[in-house]
Amino acid sequence: MNPEELKRSLAAAAARLDQVMREDLAPLANRKLAAVLEHALFAGGKRIRPLLTILAARLVRAATDKETPPAPPDKSGDLDRLAISFEYLHAASLLHDDVIDLAEQRRGRPTVNLRWDDGTAILAGDFLHARAMLLAGLAGGVACLRLIGSATQAMVAAEFLQQEAASSRDWRQETYFAVLEGKTAALIAAACESGVTASGGDPAQCKAVRTYGTNLGLAFQIIDDLLDYLGDPASTGKATGNDLQEGKMTLPLLLARQGATAAQKEELERILLADPASRRSRFDRVRELLEQTGAFAACRTRAEKLIAAGTAALEIFPASTDRDLLTALGQYVLSRKK
Amino acid sequence: MNPEELKRSLAAAAARLDQVMREDLAPLANRKLAAVLEHALFAGGKRIRPLLTILAARLVRAATDKETPPAPPDKSGDLDRLAISFEYLHAASLLHDDVIDLAEQRRGRPTVNLRWDDGTAILAGDFLHARAMLLAGLAGGVACLRLIGSATQAMVAAEFLQQEAASSRDWRQETYFAVLEGKTAALIAAACESGVTASGGDPAQCKAVRTYGTNLGLAFQIIDDLLDYLGDPASTGKATGNDLQEGKMTLPLLLARQGATAAQKEELERILLADPASRRSRFDRVRELLEQTGAFAACRTRAEKLIAAGTAALEIFPASTDRDLLTALGQYVLSRKK
Repeated sequence: MNPEELKRSLAAAAARLDQVMREDLAPLANRKLAAVLEHALFAGGKRIRPLLTILAARLVRAATDKETPPAPPDKSGDLDRLAISFEYLHAASLLHDDVIDLAEQRRGRPTVNLRWDDGTAILAGDFLHARAMLLAGLAGGVACLRLIGSATQAMVAAEFLQQEAASSRDWRQETYFAVLEGKTAALIAAACESGVTASGGDPAQCKAVRTYGTNLGLAFQIIDDLLDYLGDPASTGKATGNDLQEGKMTLPLLLARQGATAAQKEELERILLADPASRRSRFDRVRELLEQTGAFAACRTRAEKLIAAGTAALEIFPASTDRDLLTALGQYVLSRKK
Repeated sequence: MNPEELKRSLAAAAARLDQVMREDLAPLANRKLAAVLEHALFAGGKRIRPLLTILAARLVRAATDKETPPAPPDKSGDLDRLAISFEYLHAASLLHDDVIDLAEQRRGRPTVNLRWDDGTAILAGDFLHARAMLLAGLAGGVACLRLIGSATQAMVAAEFLQQEAASSRDWRQETYFAVLEGKTAALIAAACESGVTASGGDPAQCKAVRTYGTNLGLAFQIIDDLLDYLGDPASTGKATGNDLQEGKMTLPLLLARQGATAAQKEELERILLADPASRRSRFDRVRELLEQTGAFAACRTRAEKLIAAGTAALEIFPASTDRDLLTALGQYVLSRKK
């Protein structure tokens, strides 16, 4: 699947999922709540999470032995409603994150907390959170509820772990990956596994898409960390160096500490322990050190390996356009420039 | 059941439910999250919501025809876990309310947003929200998930309705009751109905406990509104006159407008449209007007009628200690002084 085909497939799927969400929210009586959700949900998102649920469900259907009657097509709309529950939960977490981070912009638009206020953003997030878990349970059953609920608990626990790691200067890779897994990968993996579960997939199929989803989420975040050092602001739309300024110990820094000479390590540490403005002023030097220690290359290799392993896990399913799309999504994560 | 017996029964039930919650939360690995939840959850709450779930479940078991095998006792702990989901959701909403209201005290202790910060309170609320819906679905099945999820959506929608009513000066009783129903009564009714549902109760039994729970919640809130005018700060622990100062159109004011002469109505309106400090300074006069118009008596009558109707609805269940306890709870709501 070439990049153009991928782009067209993603756009078509996103447009359809937008429609499912609009229909689901149409009965909302309160005009303000409806306006806030419109603002929070419909700003051109790619709808990757619900798309993963649907693609994973289709992999199982395609794999069903021909002697077994195939799973019925989703006339009930249950699979669609299960799928959008993951977009709702994602949007709910962004609404709350933006309040916590005092963020003013998201996708080039004012955040809900800026345009309205914190209370509105908190409540709208709570609404989407409740709706997400309700839809997941009603449309996907208790097994899918368990998946989305566990992912949500993991997201919160990871925020606390991240704070704890920052304050205790816990700079272990193990902790970095545990935070990433909870904050980003858990929900993506749950979206994938829910699709398989809802289609009656077996434990091996669940495990395969779980590996794919976890690795896709981890690789996505690693590339994000790389772009904060190497991205071109003209295409990413945001300045580099924010993580360094905020003192975030992302993978490039963690790997640099491993590959560094004693002198390089000492220099890096001195910069990291300085104040935010000093760190910002030393950005070019830090980038140089990361380059010299091979940290950027090691990061990229790590992301590539994750995607390769995730994609390989899907080989238990027969070849299909849907499987190709999942593979192409993995490559897209690696090649993205923004 | 006399007040002393009621008090003892409530204390024993609350102690047991506290233990269930502690066991449920024991596996939490993050120390900070555990400490925050300990602070938010264990401050001597009466655990009314989970107690209602358990009592409602027992009414159904007692009502089961002797020829039908009785529902098995709750060896699995499912009923307990379903019950605490309502306490978790209640606590989650208080955590978020305190952030939104910039509250500094709750049950005589600093709020989580004061002792830690807003982000901590938001995330801890999200954790309890997710855990609540997960437990309700796992322990009570999809039917109970639907009940708790719908109640949560109703709570948020009611907050938006309340804001809208305040800004458009919608002073209709209908709107006041719609807000109360969503903000307070919906979750209490869902707690009751979940108990019946989890015990295999029939639709008439669901409706009966739903009426009881809704009316208990409404009456509780009406008495709360009354205490803000008539309470004794020495026993309630909080000053009177807050609702008037904040311009909250609670039932005493709404009923006063109905019973007032043209002159009284005009005087009340003049006070209500003034600034908060002026309203506060006219508190004694407003209380006088409410007394003269019969608003306080009408409020109390309304609360008494709600409790009477709620209690009467339970008469479809055979008499039992559990039913007596529910009746006594209704009387307690009417007689409370704090």
